[in-house]
Amino acid sequence: MNETIEILLNHRSIRKFKEKPLKDEQIFQLVEAAQMASTSSYIQAYSIIGIKDPEKKAKLAKIAGDQSYVANNGHFFVFCADFHRHEAAGELEGVDVSEAIESMEKLVVGITDASIAAQNCAVAAESMGLGICYIGGLRNDIQATADLLELPEHVFPLFGMCVGYPEAAPSIKPRLPKEGVYFEDSYPSDDKHFEQLNKYNDTTTAYYESRTGGKRKDRWTAQVSGMLSSIKRSHMKGFLHKKGFGRN
Amino acid sequence: MNETIEILLNHRSIRKFKEKPLKDEQIFQLVEAAQMASTSSYIQAYSIIGIKDPEKKAKLAKIAGDQSYVANNGHFFVFCADFHRHEAAGELEGVDVSEAIESMEKLVVGITDASIAAQNCAVAAESMGLGICYIGGLRNDIQATADLLELPEHVFPLFGMCVGYPEAAPSIKPRLPKEGVYFEDSYPSDDKHFEQLNKYNDTTTAYYESRTGGKRKDRWTAQVSGMLSSIKRSHMKGFLHKKGFGRN
Repeated sequence: MNETIEILLNHRSIRKFKEKPLKDEQIFQLVEAAQMASTSSYIQAYSIIGIKDPEKKAKLAKIAGDQSYVANNGHFFVFCADFHRHEAAGELEGVDVSEAIESMEKLVVGITDASIAAQNCAVAAESMGLGICYIGGLRNDIQATADLLELPEHVFPLFGMCVGYPEAAPSIKPRLPKEGVYFEDSYPSDDKHFEQLNKYNDTTTAYYESRTGGKRKDRWTAQVSGMLSSIKRSHMKGFLHKKGFGRN
Repeated sequence: MNETIEILLNHRSIRKFKEKPLKDEQIFQLVEAAQMASTSSYIQAYSIIGIKDPEKKAKLAKIAGDQSYVANNGHFFVFCADFHRHEAAGELEGVDVSEAIESMEKLVVGITDASIAAQNCAVAAESMGLGICYIGGLRNDIQATADLLELPEHVFPLFGMCVGYPEAAPSIKPRLPKEGVYFEDSYPSDDKHFEQLNKYNDTTTAYYESRTGGKRKDRWTAQVSGMLSSIKRSHMKGFLHKKGFGRN
C-alpha cells in the first residue's frame, strides 16, 4: 500500500484542534490542491471562502448547531457552488447564460465540482499532518450563512470544512461492507441489501459497544432510519430556487 | 511538497488507456479508499457500480456521446447517489423514511457523498500510477443509463469514471487564478471577478496557442459562455423528480 492510500484509509473527522492557525502558505497550498481536482467541462463552478474573522466564525459555529470546532480550528473554509462567475463571463462575452446556469443539471454540476475540490483539499490537509471535519451544519440556516458571507445570486454555501492540528485522534468508523456498496454491471436485489445491512448492523453494534465500554447500544439501520424519520432542512428547496438554482 | 500533494497537483484527465484491465484487488483497493471518505452524518448515500460487461460499456460510451474511452479502459465505475439502501434500513426498523429521502436536502447530500467518495477513488488510482477521467456524459440520457444499470427509485447515476493505465499524458490545464476562486471572510465584488477573468483569459489563450502551435484561439470566458448559451440536459429536473429526488 502506498503512502497516499494509507492517508486515505486513515481518515477520521477531527473535532478538536490545537490553537494554532494555519499559515497563509499552507492555506494556499490547500487551495491549489483543491483547484487541481477534475471539473465538469472545465467549468470550475465553485468558490472557496476562508474565514479568519473570529466573529464570523462564532456565528457560523452557532448556525452549525453550536459546534465549537467551527470556531476553534486552524482555518475554516466554506465551499460554495458558484455560477456567478459564469454570469460575469457571459457579460464579458455578451452572452445570456441565465437559463443554463439556473438548470437542475447545473445545480448537480456545482455541487459535484465543489465537492471533489473540497475532497482534494481534505486529502492534501491530511497529507500535511492536519485533520479535517466537513460541516454540513451550515445548511441548518443556509440563508443566514449566505447572508453572512455576502453571497450573491447563483452562489450558495454547500458545506464548511474545519482544518487544523489535531488535538485528539478518534477511532475510525467502520464503513458499509464493500459488498453492500460496490456492485458489478447492475444494481442488486433487495435481498442482497438486507443481507449486507444485517451484517453491517453487527459491525456497528460491536463498534459502539467497544467505544463506550458496552454503554451505547446502536446499529446503523436504527441510526439512519431515526435520522430520516422526518424531513430536515426543508428550507433547502425554496432557498436554492430563490438563489437561482434548479429552476429549469 | 509531499508525495500526495504532488499527485494531486499532477492531475490531468486521461482519455487513452492501455488494453490492460485492472485486477480485482486493485478495484477493491479503490473502492475501499472511496468508502473511507467523509460522509454526511455517517449516511453513506451512494453506490458504486463497476462495469465489466463489454456490451454495457459500449452502450454507456454511446450515451456519453461516443467517447471511446468509456468502453476502452482498465475499469469503468459509475458513481450513484443512493437512498434505496436507507429505504431498506427503514423497512428493517419499521420507520417511514420516504419524506426525508425525497427532500432537496438529501439530493444535495447524495451528490456530495458520491462526489467525495469518487474523488478518493480518483486520488487512490493516480497514486497507483493509473489515470482517470470523470464522465458526466452518462447524464446525456440519464434515463437510459439508469435503465441499463437497473437502478431502482431513489438511486441515480451521477457520473462515470474511467480508470486505467495511461497511454498518453496530456498537459495540465491551467485553473482559474487562486485570487479568482479563494476569498477571505466574504464574497468579492464583480470588479474583482472581471479583473481575474481577464487575467485568466490571457492564461488560457496562451495555453491553447502553445498546445496547438498557434492554431486554436480561445479564452475561458468565451468557452464557458458558449457552453452556457443554451440549456443542456434539460431532462434532469424531471428525471430526478421521477426517480424520487428533490421532491420536497
